[in-house]
Amino acid sequence: MKLVTLANGTRDGRLHVVNQAGTKVLAVPSAVCMQHALENWEAVLPELTELSTKVENEGQAFEGADALSPLPRAVQWLDGSAFETHFLLIQQAWGLPITGLPKRPLMYQGMSDRFLAPTQTAVFPSEDDGVDFEGEFGVILGDVPMGTSAKDALQYVRLIVLINDWSLRALGPIEMATGFGWLQCKPACSVAPFAVTPDTLGDAWKDGRVCLPLTIHLDDKLFGSASGDEMKFGFDELIAHAAYSRDLPAGTILGSGTVANSNYAEVGSSCIAERRAIEQIDTGQGITPFMGNGDRVVMEARHPEFGDIFGKIEQHIAIPE
Amino acid sequence: MKLVTLANGTRDGRLHVVNQAGTKVLAVPSAVCMQHALENWEAVLPELTELSTKVENEGQAFEGADALSPLPRAVQWLDGSAFETHFLLIQQAWGLPITGLPKRPLMYQGMSDRFLAPTQTAVFPSEDDGVDFEGEFGVILGDVPMGTSAKDALQYVRLIVLINDWSLRALGPIEMATGFGWLQCKPACSVAPFAVTPDTLGDAWKDGRVCLPLTIHLDDKLFGSASGDEMKFGFDELIAHAAYSRDLPAGTILGSGTVANSNYAEVGSSCIAERRAIEQIDTGQGITPFMGNGDRVVMEARHPEFGDIFGKIEQHIAIPE
Repeated sequence: MKLVTLANGTRDGRLHVVNQAGTKVLAVPSAVCMQHALENWEAVLPELTELSTKVENEGQAFEGADALSPLPRAVQWLDGSAFETHFLLIQQAWGLPITGLPKRPLMYQGMSDRFLAPTQTAVFPSEDDGVDFEGEFGVILGDVPMGTSAKDALQYVRLIVLINDWSLRALGPIEMATGFGWLQCKPACSVAPFAVTPDTLGDAWKDGRVCLPLTIHLDDKLFGSASGDEMKFGFDELIAHAAYSRDLPAGTILGSGTVANSNYAEVGSSCIAERRAIEQIDTGQGITPFMGNGDRVVMEARHPEFGDIFGKIEQHIAIPE
Repeated sequence: MKLVTLANGTRDGRLHVVNQAGTKVLAVPSAVCMQHALENWEAVLPELTELSTKVENEGQAFEGADALSPLPRAVQWLDGSAFETHFLLIQQAWGLPITGLPKRPLMYQGMSDRFLAPTQTAVFPSEDDGVDFEGEFGVILGDVPMGTSAKDALQYVRLIVLINDWSLRALGPIEMATGFGWLQCKPACSVAPFAVTPDTLGDAWKDGRVCLPLTIHLDDKLFGSASGDEMKFGFDELIAHAAYSRDLPAGTILGSGTVANSNYAEVGSSCIAERRAIEQIDTGQGITPFMGNGDRVVMEARHPEFGDIFGKIEQHIAIPE
């Protein structure tokens, strides 16, 4: 099942079911918005399932322009950093001790009051801040009780999403050095239009991991196509980490961190910072520039059998003079 | 003007106006919840003002039991660390280089999906985590555009609140060392019942600072009564810092960090960690234990002329066996 939120003039938008190909939609009468559906999942699920069988024949044509982020604002956004290759490359390039990921998952609390629409221009204050994208997979959760173990965690995964976690790299090390974590460095993320139930991925949802390539183009050039299967910590472990000292409310979005693979020389990277780290290691300096005014990034994930899963993120950036 | 949110079975509660003494309330007909009022402030303000003049004579008796946090869930919670005395004491006690606060404000993104009610028992996973309170002042904002300067920031302060920022101290250094900031260490905060407009404080709202003593009792013993006036960065500067690379949505809560004064030997502290730091400096070891199952903390702030401003936070903690 695939769900999409369409603009209707409210802050939360209107929930629709979408067909497999992402070309037809049907409004969900009882659930005005995605957050309502997530808070009442058991009650709404039969209706969503029924609409999913009808949308192919009865749906209205959908071309994508009205799509918002599945949750245009969310109750919580927690982002992990679960791909060890990404971490090792950054450590090596920056001359840090090469330890790999710690034994505890890395995770930060990000802003969740808005997620940009998949084709919305992203506006940043300055090119000097090192504007970068980060391709990630994420899960949207039901209500998770405090103390939930990794073994019990995957039952709370309601939907899977594709995320662009915008980052201002020049501010990152300054904010990390304080120990307080990222704030200015992490403005609003964007999310691809379709949030899908785990069964939609078939065998590509495995061990709490999204085993699909996340394909990224920067200004029409292929930038990377790394797979989500190399997460050191699966979403089960990330959920347990997040729920240690708090209940996680329905509608929490949990991210994987930048997708990265050990064969990065073949598949490329999911953010500019990682490519620059590889360049630094190989040549002694980062070469690829961060993004400039008007640059465009496109992200998508295709299943070998089912085709496009999440729809596209396709965003320009703008930096006012 | 004082506002209070009362329980009505929904996640957001119902907005009421409260009289100066905090003993009478009137429901706000047009604004179902606080968040709605904040998103429509200009439209709702005349009604709120009118109700404020009526509540003394027409209000219903209010005893406090139904009070929730003014925003039982908020779109955003950003917490600063603006009191240099607190920072210096921690640096000294921990044997760190004594630098004082950095030139940029310190601030982290905290969870905002729930704020505990002022008398709600706070449940934590383990005494071993070092359960601590932190007394803070905070502001609730209207919509603040990205790039707002400190000079222009105070016009967006809608309401002022008193906050208990619950902290699990044993997890703090572990999470700070990652550079990702606090997550498990910072479960849900609590907020005192009354959110007040700046004019309610009279001269005690000055230079973007709440110049009132924040009085804390731990298990019936006076723990501290430090004033909010020694913020190194005022809320004007904290707002500008937060809005550097993002719009701040109406309903954002921004905290001062633990209130602390240079004459801490007389006025005491606003968290156990700071008292332990002072003990460490004076005697070579922290003495005061962190909180245990059943312990109780009370926070309030009295104006010398207007009396109690925010109502009381009065919470026990519970740690399941």
